[in-house]
Amino acid sequence: MQASKSRKTRVNYNTGEHLSAWRETLNSIIFGAETRAGKLFDIVLIIAISLSVLAVMLSSVEAFYQQYSWVFFYTEWGFTLLFTCEYILRLFAVRQPRLYARSFYGIIDLLSILPTYIGLLFPGIKYMLIIRILRLLRIFRIFKLAEYVDEAETLMTALKNSSQKILVFLYAVLTLSIVFGSLLYVIEGSASGFTSIPKSVYWAIVTLTTVGYGDIAPQTPLGQIIAAGIMIMGYGIIAVPTGIYSAELIKSYQPAKVSNEACPSCGKIGHDTDADFCKYCGGALEEIE
Amino acid sequence: MQASKSRKTRVNYNTGEHLSAWRETLNSIIFGAETRAGKLFDIVLIIAISLSVLAVMLSSVEAFYQQYSWVFFYTEWGFTLLFTCEYILRLFAVRQPRLYARSFYGIIDLLSILPTYIGLLFPGIKYMLIIRILRLLRIFRIFKLAEYVDEAETLMTALKNSSQKILVFLYAVLTLSIVFGSLLYVIEGSASGFTSIPKSVYWAIVTLTTVGYGDIAPQTPLGQIIAAGIMIMGYGIIAVPTGIYSAELIKSYQPAKVSNEACPSCGKIGHDTDADFCKYCGGALEEIE
Amino acid sequence: MQASKSRKTRVNYNTGEHLSAWRETLNSIIFGAETRAGKLFDIVLIIAISLSVLAVMLSSVEAFYQQYSWVFFYTEWGFTLLFTCEYILRLFAVRQPRLYARSFYGIIDLLSILPTYIGLLFPGIKYMLIIRILRLLRIFRIFKLAEYVDEAETLMTALKNSSQKILVFLYAVLTLSIVFGSLLYVIEGSASGFTSIPKSVYWAIVTLTTVGYGDIAPQTPLGQIIAAGIMIMGYGIIAVPTGIYSAELIKSYQPAKVSNEACPSCGKIGHDTDADFCKYCGGALEEIE
Amino acid sequence: MQASKSRKTRVNYNTGEHLSAWRETLNSIIFGAETRAGKLFDIVLIIAISLSVLAVMLSSVEAFYQQYSWVFFYTEWGFTLLFTCEYILRLFAVRQPRLYARSFYGIIDLLSILPTYIGLLFPGIKYMLIIRILRLLRIFRIFKLAEYVDEAETLMTALKNSSQKILVFLYAVLTLSIVFGSLLYVIEGSASGFTSIPKSVYWAIVTLTTVGYGDIAPQTPLGQIIAAGIMIMGYGIIAVPTGIYSAELIKSYQPAKVSNEACPSCGKIGHDTDADFCKYCGGALEEIE
Repeated sequence: MQASKSRKTRVNYNTGEHLSAWRETLNSIIFGAETRAGKLFDIVLIIAISLSVLAVMLSSVEAFYQQYSWVFFYTEWGFTLLFTCEYILRLFAVRQPRLYARSFYGIIDLLSILPTYIGLLFPGIKYMLIIRILRLLRIFRIFKLAEYVDEAETLMTALKNSSQKILVFLYAVLTLSIVFGSLLYVIEGSASGFTSIPKSVYWAIVTLTTVGYGDIAPQTPLGQIIAAGIMIMGYGIIAVPTGIYSAELIKSYQPAKVSNEACPSCGKIGHDTDADFCKYCGGALEEIE
Repeated sequence: MQASKSRKTRVNYNTGEHLSAWRETLNSIIFGAETRAGKLFDIVLIIAISLSVLAVMLSSVEAFYQQYSWVFFYTEWGFTLLFTCEYILRLFAVRQPRLYARSFYGIIDLLSILPTYIGLLFPGIKYMLIIRILRLLRIFRIFKLAEYVDEAETLMTALKNSSQKILVFLYAVLTLSIVFGSLLYVIEGSASGFTSIPKSVYWAIVTLTTVGYGDIAPQTPLGQIIAAGIMIMGYGIIAVPTGIYSAELIKSYQPAKVSNEACPSCGKIGHDTDADFCKYCGGALEEIE
Repeated sequence: MQASKSRKTRVNYNTGEHLSAWRETLNSIIFGAETRAGKLFDIVLIIAISLSVLAVMLSSVEAFYQQYSWVFFYTEWGFTLLFTCEYILRLFAVRQPRLYARSFYGIIDLLSILPTYIGLLFPGIKYMLIIRILRLLRIFRIFKLAEYVDEAETLMTALKNSSQKILVFLYAVLTLSIVFGSLLYVIEGSASGFTSIPKSVYWAIVTLTTVGYGDIAPQTPLGQIIAAGIMIMGYGIIAVPTGIYSAELIKSYQPAKVSNEACPSCGKIGHDTDADFCKYCGGALEEIE
Repeated sequence: MQASKSRKTRVNYNTGEHLSAWRETLNSIIFGAETRAGKLFDIVLIIAISLSVLAVMLSSVEAFYQQYSWVFFYTEWGFTLLFTCEYILRLFAVRQPRLYARSFYGIIDLLSILPTYIGLLFPGIKYMLIIRILRLLRIFRIFKLAEYVDEAETLMTALKNSSQKILVFLYAVLTLSIVFGSLLYVIEGSASGFTSIPKSVYWAIVTLTTVGYGDIAPQTPLGQIIAAGIMIMGYGIIAVPTGIYSAELIKSYQPAKVSNEACPSCGKIGHDTDADFCKYCGGALEEIE
């Protein structure tokens, strides 16, 4: 059920309208992976994306850049022009271009070519080409890794179901960090690196999440006592998101038992999905599903 | 049930006594969010609190303070006087002022204005105005984020139920930290930064909670072996609070029990303990308990 | 059941033998907390232990020691002589002195006085007086914190039940640390601080447990790639002890359902605790419990 | 079932073919632990492996090496020649040498002797002799620690069952690290140690896994804000593998199901699905399924 829903969502910008014969062919090559040409296109695309991401990463290494700057220049523009063509072809071949352009993949496809053009004005931006890596998510669809997509969706569903609880938790973590960070700022002062409240809040987050860089660390006895309290708190409350998520995942492994249809006789709800009669008044329940 | 209980607790300093007409109006504006004026008041208050917290944070940044010290001076006194008026009005408009003054929000409201006045004597204290951030907790009530309040209460209930176990755990963590900290003090000595037992205990907490600043670190082989033991212990016993909390949350998700009485009409079982009629044939069930 | 068993274990060195009247009185004062004198003795003892632990901690702080060295000297010897008298009285008043001397508290009581005497020969040892803190565990018994003792035992029982799994896990963690530590030693060499295999193994433990001091850190690209792998592994396998312990605790919340009595007719086992007849052959089962 | 399957897998290179009498004896000594000679051989082997691993570790410590270099030289060659003989004897005595050579232990046995020989050409390689530690896994078989093997297999089964979910999770962690690492590279630049995208990705992994060395740390306000986000994310998503693994382990603990058929004689329910007779009255149950 999960999987079918997601498959539907994924292709809904490509259904409905009839296309002319050759646009249909183009569509099956670019969006489909059933035909031989379609599979080949996908594999070439994955290789191109991977090489392009690798090129962006290596071009940021000083030693490589100085020696091969022209290679990186041509690679970057080559891949960008290639992906620009691909993006235009996608817009042309897809059944509902507007829906595609606003879909998750449509936005990623656009963001994957923009940084090179914007980079002409703001040079640093071009490294954001790394966002192309998100295009590789398509890999799951192409190689029919449907099970993985299903697993990912189980995880995402549990995450969505527990998102309210997790937001409450994050709000608590942030509030604690701001209050304790300010406290440490008052106690420690600039000498130990707590130069301002925002920086002290940053330190509190580093400590509470048990990351602990050590670039800022309390030096006074009182500061260290409070810091020790924050650490133990952080060590303890990591149990909260873990507990939330574990409980949610375990729940998702057990089938739903209670229907939310009301009894037509007495209007009460909370009947089991296999119930034929109302457990409160004995009246017949309508057929569920 | 949880939610209703909490709602009751939250307003119980505002029930019972009758007020004169205009105090009633003031009450509905300040404490309520049902009327238009009440909602407006709350929104203005949230903006004022947020700006005030932001001002406190920015005033601690040296660069900003030197340039705009007078802005921060007036903002601080402005917001403090505003919140002082608000506090007095609250005391005046509420039905049971004593209960309000001793309630969680009443104390926070007072603590949110005191630091400015105390700051006249002890300048550093004024940064504790940051505690105003706790006033934002009201945001949940104002925007009818009742679900979030419910989620928070599920989390808090599970936390309270497991608090005895967690206290036992914290006691064990502290005892381990004191014993191992002292051991490292004897082994390492001042050369590696273990200058006293309290500092070594601080180091042990930093290590056991996997924060690991690195400002103090063992240098001798024996010290490193024991430190490795502490780390593995800390890495392992994080399972304890997580296990406690997960088990508690999962327990709180458990659905109402199933009775093991069979239906006298059709003989089938699996009825809920609150069922009066058989869900398979609609026949009356015998009284259970 | 758990609690009663533990209470039995705790006092079994104080049962059986008859004592003369005044030794009986001494016994009830020292070991009991029911009489007024017994409660007073316990409270005085807890205060004495706490002060003594505090004195040991403060005596290690250079600034305090230089100013008050004679105070610390007298405090240390005073408390040690006091606790020595108490230990001798305990041996004298208890019903089974040998069992007491070998019990957990008996050993802790002895270890709490030895460091001062050994400290005459090896000065550093005296800081191990901190072990006196373990004597404070008695606090739970004295203040009738039986619930806490019960909670602690639930946690310990779950820990014991999962100890085999946790040992297997620790063995895996140590083996991984030794193999990856050696690998990094070969790759990084002394320049980055990986001066020997034992030190590299120490680094691998620091990294795998997500402590991350940063006193030793890989500098070469290959070393950093492998280090990243170790970190992700450590981040992932923390799930293992947590999962083990959570599952064990959740199991301990559900009542035992299956008896291990065999059926007298067919010899098969696996009957529910509430079964009166064998589910395989229909023969009557003997009364269980 | 688990255990028996694994035992079968472990010995399947030693079944089938008939051997001459003295090769049979050799086989029982080397591969078996039932005879006295076989047990002695295993114990000697474990001691030899442990000493050899210890020698490799100590030989990497500069201070020891300079003083006892000739001792380490002879120990290394001595153990290597010994294990080479053992490997040849194993190949000779085993029933199916090819299967053995390709089995897990066969490969480990070979890898445990190769580094010394390759070390003649590439000196650093010899430290990889540490891989001999994996040979100690045999310890579980020799001392009949079958329970531990079973526990390890429960853990491995749960790990295998959740491996798809964990792979999805690791893919997400890596993608996040690459995107956020690049972002920090653009924001921070070389001044703060973010000298290239690969190095920034390494930093993102160090931060997301809450290791936090602190050798690289953001210095700009924007960088610190994003870093704080990554930390909170890392602190939160550790819940994901933990939840997956906990849920999987708990599922593996679930007892056999209870049928919901009532007993035709006494009408009571709650019988196990494998029950043939009622556990309350002893009457025959109808065939279920």
